[in-house]
Amino acid sequence: MNESAMQHIPESKYCFAVNKNTVALRLRISRDDIPEQIEVVYGGKYSYAKKRQSCIMQRSYEDRLYAYYTAYIVLDDVRFVYIFSITDNGSTYYFSEDGLTENFDYELSFYNCFQLAYINETDILKPVEWMRTATFYQIFVERFCMGDKDKDKSYVNLKWGELPAPKSFAGGDLEGVIKKLDYLKNLGINAIYLTPVFQSESNHKYDISDYYRIDEHFGDKETFSRLVKKAHAMGIRVVLDAVFNHCSKNTVQFQDVIAKGKKSPYFNWFIIHGDYVDTEKVNYECFASCNYMPKWNTSDVEVRKYLTDIATYWIKEYNIDGWRLDVSDEISHEFWRDFRRAVKGAKPDCVLIGENWHDANVYLHGDQYDSIMNYAFTKACLDFYCSGLFTPRQFADKLNELLMRNTDSVNIMMLNLLDSHDTYRFVTQSKSVDKLMSALAVMYMYVGAPCIYYGTEIALEGNFDPDSRRTFDWEKAKEDTKLMRLIKALAEMKHGINLCDAVIRITEKDGLVFLERRGLKLAVNQSGRSADYSAADVVVCNNYSDGVLADSGFVIERTQ
Amino acid sequence: MNESAMQHIPESKYCFAVNKNTVALRLRISRDDIPEQIEVVYGGKYSYAKKRQSCIMQRSYEDRLYAYYTAYIVLDDVRFVYIFSITDNGSTYYFSEDGLTENFDYELSFYNCFQLAYINETDILKPVEWMRTATFYQIFVERFCMGDKDKDKSYVNLKWGELPAPKSFAGGDLEGVIKKLDYLKNLGINAIYLTPVFQSESNHKYDISDYYRIDEHFGDKETFSRLVKKAHAMGIRVVLDAVFNHCSKNTVQFQDVIAKGKKSPYFNWFIIHGDYVDTEKVNYECFASCNYMPKWNTSDVEVRKYLTDIATYWIKEYNIDGWRLDVSDEISHEFWRDFRRAVKGAKPDCVLIGENWHDANVYLHGDQYDSIMNYAFTKACLDFYCSGLFTPRQFADKLNELLMRNTDSVNIMMLNLLDSHDTYRFVTQSKSVDKLMSALAVMYMYVGAPCIYYGTEIALEGNFDPDSRRTFDWEKAKEDTKLMRLIKALAEMKHGINLCDAVIRITEKDGLVFLERRGLKLAVNQSGRSADYSAADVVVCNNYSDGVLADSGFVIERTQ
Repeated sequence: MNESAMQHIPESKYCFAVNKNTVALRLRISRDDIPEQIEVVYGGKYSYAKKRQSCIMQRSYEDRLYAYYTAYIVLDDVRFVYIFSITDNGSTYYFSEDGLTENFDYELSFYNCFQLAYINETDILKPVEWMRTATFYQIFVERFCMGDKDKDKSYVNLKWGELPAPKSFAGGDLEGVIKKLDYLKNLGINAIYLTPVFQSESNHKYDISDYYRIDEHFGDKETFSRLVKKAHAMGIRVVLDAVFNHCSKNTVQFQDVIAKGKKSPYFNWFIIHGDYVDTEKVNYECFASCNYMPKWNTSDVEVRKYLTDIATYWIKEYNIDGWRLDVSDEISHEFWRDFRRAVKGAKPDCVLIGENWHDANVYLHGDQYDSIMNYAFTKACLDFYCSGLFTPRQFADKLNELLMRNTDSVNIMMLNLLDSHDTYRFVTQSKSVDKLMSALAVMYMYVGAPCIYYGTEIALEGNFDPDSRRTFDWEKAKEDTKLMRLIKALAEMKHGINLCDAVIRITEKDGLVFLERRGLKLAVNQSGRSADYSAADVVVCNNYSDGVLADSGFVIERTQ
Repeated sequence: MNESAMQHIPESKYCFAVNKNTVALRLRISRDDIPEQIEVVYGGKYSYAKKRQSCIMQRSYEDRLYAYYTAYIVLDDVRFVYIFSITDNGSTYYFSEDGLTENFDYELSFYNCFQLAYINETDILKPVEWMRTATFYQIFVERFCMGDKDKDKSYVNLKWGELPAPKSFAGGDLEGVIKKLDYLKNLGINAIYLTPVFQSESNHKYDISDYYRIDEHFGDKETFSRLVKKAHAMGIRVVLDAVFNHCSKNTVQFQDVIAKGKKSPYFNWFIIHGDYVDTEKVNYECFASCNYMPKWNTSDVEVRKYLTDIATYWIKEYNIDGWRLDVSDEISHEFWRDFRRAVKGAKPDCVLIGENWHDANVYLHGDQYDSIMNYAFTKACLDFYCSGLFTPRQFADKLNELLMRNTDSVNIMMLNLLDSHDTYRFVTQSKSVDKLMSALAVMYMYVGAPCIYYGTEIALEGNFDPDSRRTFDWEKAKEDTKLMRLIKALAEMKHGINLCDAVIRITEKDGLVFLERRGLKLAVNQSGRSADYSAADVVVCNNYSDGVLADSGFVIERTQ
């Protein structure tokens, strides 16, 4: 055994309560080690020296370096203590807080066993139930659809269909989203995530000047109310963009600080290096290097209250279903703790999805947000399908590795995506609709909620911002393409087979990557569609998609 | 390089803000790997692709399996992103979120670098300043000193000096503590931790029936007020025991639930399996198997408020300096978050010390408590000095390993102890005053606050409870012993040399374990005092202890 590869941390992704009397355990060992058996030897905190039970663990996941053994245990005594017993080459070893040893003294185990000393219900991170079967569609509102034909269009400076520049306005609005809900429903979408909709000067609206007002170009509160109500009536959830890291310099608060400096009651709402704002020298913290977006000081209690009130206002008044949290990684943890309490207090199944591009486990312990936009999944797909950095084995390894970053509950709520308004479009990077389709199938089969960026279904192209924010082509959307059929079929699969839990098996063999879940098995290769598939192609398919999936260039077979 | 041994986790003990513009970094690698150089390559989140700096890391700690490289970096841009660059056998490798690679693409680093995306001041765990030089003395009040000679002693059933039974009452009280503050001050103590002092039926007082009343056998609020005031006047801090996992069945609340079952407003304050309390079948959660101590339901908001109000009451009204948190590992994290906010709001430098016997890192991220009773340190000393489980090398390794469990700030506030009311006394287990003295020297030199259990200075013996709670021998305390002189000298050392930071170097050579800190070097061996020491004995000593330390059987030398 390579002991230095072994890892187990109680009350973490390695040991967490699934419900009030069930714990999930993971033990990480070197992938190269294949012991005969790993058992967890467990008991109650106050009786462990005398009375113990054991449970055999399964080798469930393998990534590049490690293998992960798992077990789910239903407890009588929720004061749970345990160690691992490993049989390797005929010998037994023990893995405890003291590492790997040949002996273990249960009488003194109160010093060095592992423990989850009590399962307190308030600490359990329960998945938002509707996220189990959510299929998302991200809408960059300004470019999706202009629905209000009668509005004052004098601000529009881009003809629909032409390529956008940084300051283009094409006229998309909330009325347009309302009009296309039927279209989205037909695509199998049951949740939409809208980029910001509050009053702002830009086309992207990430520089909000009034959080209590719908942007005048997008509509008004009446429009928004109709949107949410119609979506809900159709079984579609609505998630908004929470831009709480920064605001527009035009907020009442920042303008007051500009005017009054340290005498402004809002002075501490921002982070200003000096006694007054110097807009030329930019002596205040802002988003990136954008001096028109000053950063909120979320270390300040009043700011936390102000922003969380906004979050609960839109829940209470308009019944939205979630917040996507912009630049969430630069905001204080203390803010997210306040925020979660306020939001979950107002609506327990309101989902909170951070914009953290990196491993965000420290935000996902149950006290801050529920999940993140899974850009690490994006990168894995790019490395496999586009850059050629990943072999099939490396792709399978990485997909497993990403699942091991967080608990099951978080994984179920992950927002998995291939692209967004902040990246190249996947089809532009892959230069292949076949690859796009293959990656979409992986995304729908993977644990978490798939999220399609508007236009993906018509293979809309786009490089980095502003090109990734082109206007939607509604003519093209009328075509009956393989891509469109695939997306509908994948949604049927997701809902029909009810891919709702965190159980998945991801492996590689002979250049194919397999994802197995709930009696389904997906095989993909690096080219999206290739002769390599023919061998697998004989096994087709499932009774709810009428062969559409096989037609798409890869195979999903029923294994049960 | 053994890649599977490598570990780095941003926003954890591996990467934390020390102040508003300084981060501490740790990179873990295999102890067997000794690369030529490890650098951290860092920059601002929005400029990293173009502009980077680097800083060489130091190999600062080694434990059984791993070596830890550290760096402290002062930042211009607190949106800190970084990777590690490792030179090994003439080649350069990069360590990022994607593991160890031969190349690293800085242009795409927004996907896979490490980051501490912003240092928000509210998230920084700052040490309670007075803990840097605190030397604690734990008092089991019932057995320390009877100060009130005039009180009704009818409850006393144990003659002072006789061995205690589980239900013995010897008469110790708060007046006794007050009378002995001069004695403690003379011993170099500047903080006392009292086991519970609130109204309770037992001698240990961990079954509290009224949290707003001083136990009638111990005194009253006037006595307690005098105690705190006198202690403070002498520069001695006062830490109380917070028993918030459970209470006595005699609390008003539990009695109401017994009487009214589900109709009681306090029904949800406990965890009852059924609609009423069955005291025979014990259908409610309690501490261990003690049915007279029902467990508080700290998932309940009202309970959290009730208990945190108690905590702030004793701070606001009596100005106590800290809480030691009984059975803290069985209480909800959400409770500790509320608790910390309330307590730190009332008194920012009130220290919070959990009773977690195991690695408690998950409680020590800055949102819950400050530190714990360091029973893992206790175990390390037992394994080295008493059971012979540890070689000197293993002892040094473990002392390093324990420091790597938490951040510097937490380490500075650790309550290090050799024994307590819940263990054997160290001198009884080691059967050697020499070993006790040696272990005490280690404890005072180690990072954190040393805590002496009452009677240690007179080598009071004791097996497990109730024997570990014998009455103090005030006659013996008058003797001028080596042990007593040592403890005073160690306190002088702690305060005089100002062992206030987290920097320490712990190594082993030729059977000696060395602790080096702030220009001092302590050498100890397994026997406490042995011929092995003579070689080192030639280097003596320091100007504030007049040779007392050398006289104690080991050497502390000045290295600067």
